[in-house]
Amino acid sequence: MTSPPDSSDALILLAHGSRDPRWREPFEALETALATRLKRPTRLAYMELCDPLLTDTINTLVAENASRIDILPLFFAAGRHLREDVPAMLEVSQHDHPDCPIALLDPVGAHPAFVEALIQIVEQQDR
Amino acid sequence: MTSPPDSSDALILLAHGSRDPRWREPFEALETALATRLKRPTRLAYMELCDPLLTDTINTLVAENASRIDILPLFFAAGRHLREDVPAMLEVSQHDHPDCPIALLDPVGAHPAFVEALIQIVEQQDR
Repeated sequence: MTSPPDSSDALILLAHGSRDPRWREPFEALETALATRLKRPTRLAYMELCDPLLTDTINTLVAENASRIDILPLFFAAGRHLREDVPAMLEVSQHDHPDCPIALLDPVGAHPAFVEALIQIVEQQDR
Repeated sequence: MTSPPDSSDALILLAHGSRDPRWREPFEALETALATRLKRPTRLAYMELCDPLLTDTINTLVAENASRIDILPLFFAAGRHLREDVPAMLEVSQHDHPDCPIALLDPVGAHPAFVEALIQIVEQQDR
């Protein structure tokens, strides 16, 4: 059996979810911006309170023949949700889809590229 | 009266705050990283639940002769907190310190540099 092509490596942007309907808009804008820039299938999913939920999005991507799924949490910090709740969800999903490796990446706030972005944003304010 | 030097333009990184003690660590790491890279005084403050609170940090910076304070919200989106609660706090602070302009910047998630950082992070995962 040959490996599926790299182009079926998928990315999920994981946001928390909120009851505030206006809260979703900027996350959807990020999804659109990344989906047009990245070669891999890119989807936004929520941990709770909003559709689509993480588990459903994983199921959809596997049905679409994803060979691997990386999950990038749009969180600044790894709080209880990322230390406990999300790994518990992923354990179930990985069990359901043993042939598709599912990786939870560090939250955005923990990557050096994020620090560089903050510095750029602040330096743009300097007049 | 001459204007104070630009070097007294201060920056506050505004985080939400949480009862989870481990939640603060990555924000404090961001504060340290930015304070060493930026020329302007840079402080971390919280909207609620953690010390120091935003209003107290503004008072401290004004006492330290800040000529202007920019506040960069470490939020992905402008939810109710950034649309209502924080502006209400800042209205009081601005009234207390009429000679120090206080500006609430867009949340980190709304800046183009943030999208670029996400793309860099994802492309680093591609093997």
